[in-house]
Amino acid sequence: MAIVLGDNRYGKAEVRLVRVDRDIDPGADQHGITDLNVSVALSGDMADTHESGANDKVLATDTQKNTVFAFARDGIGAIEDFGLRLARHFVDSQPSIHRARVRIEQFTWTRLGGHSFAGAGGGTRTAVVTYDGERSWAVSGLTDLTVLNSTDSEFWGFPRDQYTTLQETKDRILATAVNATWRHTTTEGVDWDTSYDAAKQSLLDAFAGTYSYSLQQTLYAMGERVLTNDPGVAEVRLSLPNKHHFLSDLSPFGLDNPGEVYYAADRPYGLIEGTVLRDDAPPAGPAWD
Amino acid sequence: MAIVLGDNRYGKAEVRLVRVDRDIDPGADQHGITDLNVSVALSGDMADTHESGANDKVLATDTQKNTVFAFARDGIGAIEDFGLRLARHFVDSQPSIHRARVRIEQFTWTRLGGHSFAGAGGGTRTAVVTYDGERSWAVSGLTDLTVLNSTDSEFWGFPRDQYTTLQETKDRILATAVNATWRHTTTEGVDWDTSYDAAKQSLLDAFAGTYSYSLQQTLYAMGERVLTNDPGVAEVRLSLPNKHHFLSDLSPFGLDNPGEVYYAADRPYGLIEGTVLRDDAPPAGPAWD
Amino acid sequence: MAIVLGDNRYGKAEVRLVRVDRDIDPGADQHGITDLNVSVALSGDMADTHESGANDKVLATDTQKNTVFAFARDGIGAIEDFGLRLARHFVDSQPSIHRARVRIEQFTWTRLGGHSFAGAGGGTRTAVVTYDGERSWAVSGLTDLTVLNSTDSEFWGFPRDQYTTLQETKDRILATAVNATWRHTTTEGVDWDTSYDAAKQSLLDAFAGTYSYSLQQTLYAMGERVLTNDPGVAEVRLSLPNKHHFLSDLSPFGLDNPGEVYYAADRPYGLIEGTVLRDDAPPAGPAWD
Amino acid sequence: MAIVLGDNRYGKAEVRLVRVDRDIDPGADQHGITDLNVSVALSGDMADTHESGANDKVLATDTQKNTVFAFARDGIGAIEDFGLRLARHFVDSQPSIHRARVRIEQFTWTRLGGHSFAGAGGGTRTAVVTYDGERSWAVSGLTDLTVLNSTDSEFWGFPRDQYTTLQETKDRILATAVNATWRHTTTEGVDWDTSYDAAKQSLLDAFAGTYSYSLQQTLYAMGERVLTNDPGVAEVRLSLPNKHHFLSDLSPFGLDNPGEVYYAADRPYGLIEGTVLRDDAPPAGPAWD
Repeated sequence: MAIVLGDNRYGKAEVRLVRVDRDIDPGADQHGITDLNVSVALSGDMADTHESGANDKVLATDTQKNTVFAFARDGIGAIEDFGLRLARHFVDSQPSIHRARVRIEQFTWTRLGGHSFAGAGGGTRTAVVTYDGERSWAVSGLTDLTVLNSTDSEFWGFPRDQYTTLQETKDRILATAVNATWRHTTTEGVDWDTSYDAAKQSLLDAFAGTYSYSLQQTLYAMGERVLTNDPGVAEVRLSLPNKHHFLSDLSPFGLDNPGEVYYAADRPYGLIEGTVLRDDAPPAGPAWD
Repeated sequence: MAIVLGDNRYGKAEVRLVRVDRDIDPGADQHGITDLNVSVALSGDMADTHESGANDKVLATDTQKNTVFAFARDGIGAIEDFGLRLARHFVDSQPSIHRARVRIEQFTWTRLGGHSFAGAGGGTRTAVVTYDGERSWAVSGLTDLTVLNSTDSEFWGFPRDQYTTLQETKDRILATAVNATWRHTTTEGVDWDTSYDAAKQSLLDAFAGTYSYSLQQTLYAMGERVLTNDPGVAEVRLSLPNKHHFLSDLSPFGLDNPGEVYYAADRPYGLIEGTVLRDDAPPAGPAWD
Repeated sequence: MAIVLGDNRYGKAEVRLVRVDRDIDPGADQHGITDLNVSVALSGDMADTHESGANDKVLATDTQKNTVFAFARDGIGAIEDFGLRLARHFVDSQPSIHRARVRIEQFTWTRLGGHSFAGAGGGTRTAVVTYDGERSWAVSGLTDLTVLNSTDSEFWGFPRDQYTTLQETKDRILATAVNATWRHTTTEGVDWDTSYDAAKQSLLDAFAGTYSYSLQQTLYAMGERVLTNDPGVAEVRLSLPNKHHFLSDLSPFGLDNPGEVYYAADRPYGLIEGTVLRDDAPPAGPAWD
Repeated sequence: MAIVLGDNRYGKAEVRLVRVDRDIDPGADQHGITDLNVSVALSGDMADTHESGANDKVLATDTQKNTVFAFARDGIGAIEDFGLRLARHFVDSQPSIHRARVRIEQFTWTRLGGHSFAGAGGGTRTAVVTYDGERSWAVSGLTDLTVLNSTDSEFWGFPRDQYTTLQETKDRILATAVNATWRHTTTEGVDWDTSYDAAKQSLLDAFAGTYSYSLQQTLYAMGERVLTNDPGVAEVRLSLPNKHHFLSDLSPFGLDNPGEVYYAADRPYGLIEGTVLRDDAPPAGPAWD
C-alpha cells in the first residue's frame, strides 16, 4: 500500500474583468460593456509540485490572471469563445498542462445611455469550457434566475408515512431560482449568443407554461424544452431550490386567506436536481468537471 | 452617579411577506404580486422590561409579525402607506408604545405571463415610516441599484501629500451601487408610486448625464435632481461606494490598453456619503432613526 | 428656497491590512499577527467638490489607503490607538479636513505554532475613533459573538391583543449574536486591550448569568455589567437579534419533546436594541457617527 | 432519438436542527448542545413524477424534514451515525427510494457555563453519508477552517512565459481556508468523533509543520498526514483557496517593508484542488455524489 496523488487541478479563480468597447457603433458615442468573472483550472503533470515542491511545471496562477487580461485586449466575444481561446492557449503552450477548464460568469447590464449602464436582473450567464489538447467541450448555463408562478401548481398524491403531516394542495405558489447548465454537442460553429437566448427563453417559457404537479415535473419540462428547441444541445442539468411560500394562517384573527397572503421561507427548502438528455447523446466526458 | 436606560426599541425584523392579488384585471387571468421584507421597531415605556423583566408593556414581536400578515389581508398598496397603517396601529392600540418605525424593502418582479414572474434587477425599493402618536414621517428610498459610466469621468487636481501615489486621470470608469433615501415633507396625499418612479428616474438621469470630476459631484447632482423634480421631497441622503475599475497594465505583454481592459476591484473601495436638502426643509426629526 | 449640501463625508473603506510582527519574542522563532479591516471617513470643507468638481481639498481615498499601510510600518498596537494616530494625521495635515473617523475591525487568530495561526471564533473586535482637531472620541466594540442559553429563559406576561397567538413559556432557548459598542470617557491613558477583554468578559458573564424574562432584560444586564466593571466606560449600546429556536412539535409522530429538539429559524427574528449609560455621562457628540 | 431523464435526486435541504441534552451529567446542571444543518437527497424510481407529475413515489420533502426532527428525539450522536440512521430509514421504508444521501454540517459551540455557550471558530464539521439499500459510504470533512503561516513559504522556479510578471519569493505568507473531505473504508465500528479530531489535527499539524514551496505541496502533505494517521481513511480531497497576502510597497513613502505590512486580497485568488489516496483504496462509488 502506498499513498498517491489522485485527481488534481489548480488555477486562478474569480478574475474580475470588465471590457469597454468604444467603437461598437463608429460615429455614434456608444460604448459596449462586458463584465466577467473568469476562473481557470489547469491539470496535467503535477506530481512533482505536490510531492517535492518543484515548480518548473506550474504555470503561476498570477500568469493565468495576466493572460486573461491580455487576451481581453483583442476583444472578448461570446464567453464560450473567450474561454476556449484561453483553454487552448494554456494547453497548447505549456507541455505539462494536459487539460484546461475555464469557467466564466457574465453579469448583465442594461443601457441607460451611450456610455451609461445599470445592473440588470434576469440571472447570470455562465460557461464552462474544457480542452484536453485534442477535444473541447462547452457547457453553457445561467444561474440565479428567480421565477415564480402564483398559481397552476398542485402537489398531492404523495405517500403518507408516519412522519407525513403535509396537507395536499390544489393551488400553491411555485418559486425557484434557476440554476441550469446545458452541454453542447460541438464547440465548432455555434452561435453562442443566439443559443443562450434561446435556451433562456425555453427555460422561462417552460416554467411559466407548465401546469405543475411537482417541481420535478417542471424541471423535466424545462430541460426538455431546451433540447427540443436546440438540436445542438445534448444534455441539460438543472438544480432548482423549491422556494417555499406558505399560506399564512389568518384564522386566529377571524380572517380567511383565499390564496393571498404568504410567508416566504428561507430554510429549509426543497432541492430538486435532475438531468434531461438525448438518449443518443455522446458521453459528457470532462465537460462538467 | 447611576446607571440608566437610554434610547431603546425592539420589534420583529425581516418578516418576508408575499401577497398575490388575483383580481387585478377581472375577467383576465392576471395576478399581481407584492414581495416585501418588513421590519417593525417599537419604543415607548419600556423601562420595566429592561430592569425587572416585567413584560406587561411588551407587545410580543410574534404579535407584530402576525399583525403584518393580517394587515396584508386587506391589500398592501404602496409600501409607505402599508407601513403607516402598521405604525399607527401599534401606537394607537398599545398605550405603552409611543413610537413605531416600520421599514420595508420591496423586491421587484417582471411579468412573464398572467401569473408568472421573474425576479427583476434595478434595485430594491425601500421605505421607512415613523409615527409617534401625533406626527408621521416617511422616507422613501432604493438600494443596490448598480450603475456605471464607461467614460465622462475625470479625477485630478487633488492634493498630493507624502502618501499620494495616485495618478491623475482624464478618463475613468465611474461605477457605484446607489443607496439613496429621501424624506417627504408630508405623509398626506402623496402618490408614493409616482414619486418613487420619478425619484429613481432622477437618480439615473443625473448619474448618466453628469460629466463627473468626482463621485462627490455626481452625488450632489443626483440629490439635487430629485429635489428639483419633486417639490414634496425635503432632503436626500446618498451613500455611494466607488466601485473602482482599474485599467489593467498590459505593457509587460507588449500591448497598449486604450481604456478597454479593466480589473474590477472588491476592497478597498471609496465610500462617498452626503446629504442634499432644501435650506427651508423642516427638521428631519426621527424620520431616519 | 435653495438646495444646499448637508452632512457629508468620504473616505476609503475596508482596507484589509495584515501585519506580521517578527520580533515579539527575540530569540524565539515567534511571530505575531494583526489582521484588520480599516475604513476612513473624512469631512470638512467639501462644498467645492460637491458643487463644482474642484478637487483641491479632496485628499484622495487612494492616499488614505496608502497612509494606512505606511502607518502600519511602525507597528499597530491597540486598534483604538492606531485609529487615533490615523485620524489625527488626516485632520492635522489637511487644512480642509475638519473631522476624521476611523473604523477598524480586528479579526482574531489563535496560535498553532511559532508562526502558524488558525482563525478564531468569539466575535470580531471593533473600534470607531473620531477626531475633530480638538477633541477625540473612542467607541470600542465587538460584533458577531454568538451566544446561547439552553435554559433559564422565560417569556410570559406580555399583553394579548387580537393578533396575539404566542404561547407563554417558562423555559426557552435564548440565543443572540452580540453587537455591542461602548464609549470611553476619554481617549487618554486607556489600556485598550485590558478594557476590551474586561468588557467582553462582562458581556459574556451577564448573558450567561442572567436568569432572563426577556431579551431586553438580558440586554440591560449586559450593558450594566460593562459599566459597573469599567468606570472608564460612559455608555453601552447593544443590538441583539433574538435568534429564535422553536420547539419542534413531535406529537404527530407520537413523541413528546421535553425541551430537546428545536428548529433554529432564520427570518423573521426579534431585534432588541438599547442603550445603557451613566446618568452623568458626557454627551456622546460625534462618537458614534 | 428521444429525450430521457438522467440522474436525478431531490430532498429537503438545510434543516436547521438544534438538540439540547439535559442529562449529560446527571446531578450537575449541565446541558449539551448539538447544532446541525441537515440536507437530504433521495433518488430512485422517479421517472413518473418527472414525466407525468404522479407523486405516489415522492416522499414529500416536508416529510423528510419531519423525519429529521423526529429522529433527533432519541439523540443524535456523531453526525455520521445520525446521517446513516436517516439514510437507511428512507431507503428501507420507501420502495421507490433506491439511494439516500444525507449531508450534515455541525456548528461548534464552546461552553460558557452549565447551560451557556458561545459560537466557536475552528471550522465546521461535515459529513456526507450515502446508502443504496446494500452498502453505505461515509465521507467526513471540515470546511471554513482558516489557517495562515507567516513564514516558511516560498514560491519560485515556476515557468516564465510572455505573460509572467510574478516575482519569485523566498518568504511569503501562506493562508487558506481549508475545505477537506475524507472517505472512510467502512461505516461499521468507526469512532467518528475520535476520527474527526485526529483528522483535523493532522490537517493543522501538516499545514503548520510543512516548509512549503507551493500550496500544492502543502495540500499533499495535509492529505498524506490524514491517511498516515488513520488507516480507516481511504481518500482525502482538499480544496484550498490561496488567500493572497501581498507585501505592501512602501518605498514611495521612503519606507522599507521587511515582511511586515501586507494587503489581504479578496479576488482573484488561487484555487488548489487535489485528491490524496491509498493506491489500494476501494473505488469511491457514490460516496461523494
